[in-house]
Amino acid sequence: MTKAEAGRKTVLAAADKVAIVAGSGRLPVNVAESLALVGHVPFIVRIAGETDPGTSLETYPGSTLAVEQFAGLLPLLRRQGITHVVLAGGVSRRPMWRAIRPSLSLLSILPRAILALRRGDDGLLRILVDLIEDNGIKVVGAHQVVPELLAVEGRMGTHAPIAADWDDLRAGLEAARAIGALDIGQAAVAIGGRAIALEGIEGTDLLLERVRDLRKNGRIAGRKRGVVVKCAKPGQELRADLPTIGPATVDAAHAAGLAGIGVEAGRSLVLDFGELVERADRLGLFVVGLTGRETAR
Amino acid sequence: MTKAEAGRKTVLAAADKVAIVAGSGRLPVNVAESLALVGHVPFIVRIAGETDPGTSLETYPGSTLAVEQFAGLLPLLRRQGITHVVLAGGVSRRPMWRAIRPSLSLLSILPRAILALRRGDDGLLRILVDLIEDNGIKVVGAHQVVPELLAVEGRMGTHAPIAADWDDLRAGLEAARAIGALDIGQAAVAIGGRAIALEGIEGTDLLLERVRDLRKNGRIAGRKRGVVVKCAKPGQELRADLPTIGPATVDAAHAAGLAGIGVEAGRSLVLDFGELVERADRLGLFVVGLTGRETAR
Repeated sequence: MTKAEAGRKTVLAAADKVAIVAGSGRLPVNVAESLALVGHVPFIVRIAGETDPGTSLETYPGSTLAVEQFAGLLPLLRRQGITHVVLAGGVSRRPMWRAIRPSLSLLSILPRAILALRRGDDGLLRILVDLIEDNGIKVVGAHQVVPELLAVEGRMGTHAPIAADWDDLRAGLEAARAIGALDIGQAAVAIGGRAIALEGIEGTDLLLERVRDLRKNGRIAGRKRGVVVKCAKPGQELRADLPTIGPATVDAAHAAGLAGIGVEAGRSLVLDFGELVERADRLGLFVVGLTGRETAR
Repeated sequence: MTKAEAGRKTVLAAADKVAIVAGSGRLPVNVAESLALVGHVPFIVRIAGETDPGTSLETYPGSTLAVEQFAGLLPLLRRQGITHVVLAGGVSRRPMWRAIRPSLSLLSILPRAILALRRGDDGLLRILVDLIEDNGIKVVGAHQVVPELLAVEGRMGTHAPIAADWDDLRAGLEAARAIGALDIGQAAVAIGGRAIALEGIEGTDLLLERVRDLRKNGRIAGRKRGVVVKCAKPGQELRADLPTIGPATVDAAHAAGLAGIGVEAGRSLVLDFGELVERADRLGLFVVGLTGRETAR
């Protein structure tokens, strides 16, 4: 699959069978539920210690693999007659090298590739993707089989950015792009027309927690409002690691005293959309899908 | 004074009289002591609530101004026959607008300019600089009257970067440059050849604290070493807000588990040099002045 193809919607045939390799968070749950709704009940490959317990994922057929057993992924997918694989959710555990049985040539490559999922390292992710696809199984992005997860342009919910918020959205987008280009992070917070905090390896949750603390400690010069902007990095591998927001992002942005959230339309995922909009409306935050052309002033 | 001139050393004549507008931190102390050593005892304008108490600054002639009284700076400088002003140290307080007597035309501009010092906003800083210089008083950078404060190229102290550290120094420099170009921050932490944390408005101390916490919580994937790199932003107003390191930076980098510190030679200040080197040597950290050409691989 080429990069251009990676952006396209995948139309599933009736006989196709989708597996979700499910890391942590709400993304695999959203994907599974959406697929089931249209009659494509997915097979869930739970990653031990990563997949969140207590979700609807447990109601679908599936199997659990330790990070160390990832050499067993391909045989499992073949036994289940899987035609499409979605890699979804976070993977924070690293393989314990001693626990890996050195039986397959995959061994030396897969664990690095799994790690790469978390780190946004496209080079290594492509190794994993290539290995699966070499075996005749397509690797597709969550948004390709469930396109309704993609952020759309414009306002989601009741509240809209005011003029000053657009300055922040532009500054945040510019900053998020710059750090994305360096493969450092996906998100930036802008207040008063300037980016004031950038996401590194700590992730968006801790970025917003930091802004909350800075605001609490008076380190943000008496400025109200402000936004968090997430965007995909230029040339991003679109089949994994797309920027994602959900209801928890709204809560964290609210706790940080921000006025709203901007995401890149068509290249970001919005999880639990209904709940996100309900919460943003209730807390008075706007959520807006950016075209990416906002930086041109 | 033009930007080109701002980079040059200022040779003080015997009759010249230097005032230091002293914010917080060690920089004003370093500048005052170095000037006194060569016979130019400075006049200290202490900023109420900002200038650190208990330093040698108290042994020099001087006066204290509240942030709100900054309209009184020019008359004070003139009364003292000041020929050169150094703006040095941090200013975190904001003027209480009610406490300002609305008597001078400066009022609407100076407080914003003072704020700008802290925020690295060159445009506003230049307003302050221009106002002072319009009155025949030169505003000079700390490094122009005390050039020995500037970081030199190469290693300071005993320890030197190993090969892997140079990958980190390059990645850190590239990231610090990128955020500097956007006027967001001056510092980046790189570990394992990748930038993993970026400075925003929180400053270098909190950046390093964050890396310490990330390391403690296992969020930095088992990687040892790593560096913090500070550099001036492209086109930076060189008379204030130069990137600065000191003994406390060494402590914080050590606490974050980093192997060393990189600063841009000729465009960064090293405070309390002797103590910094002694501490880096004892803790096993390297401190290196970068030429800025390290990013070319």
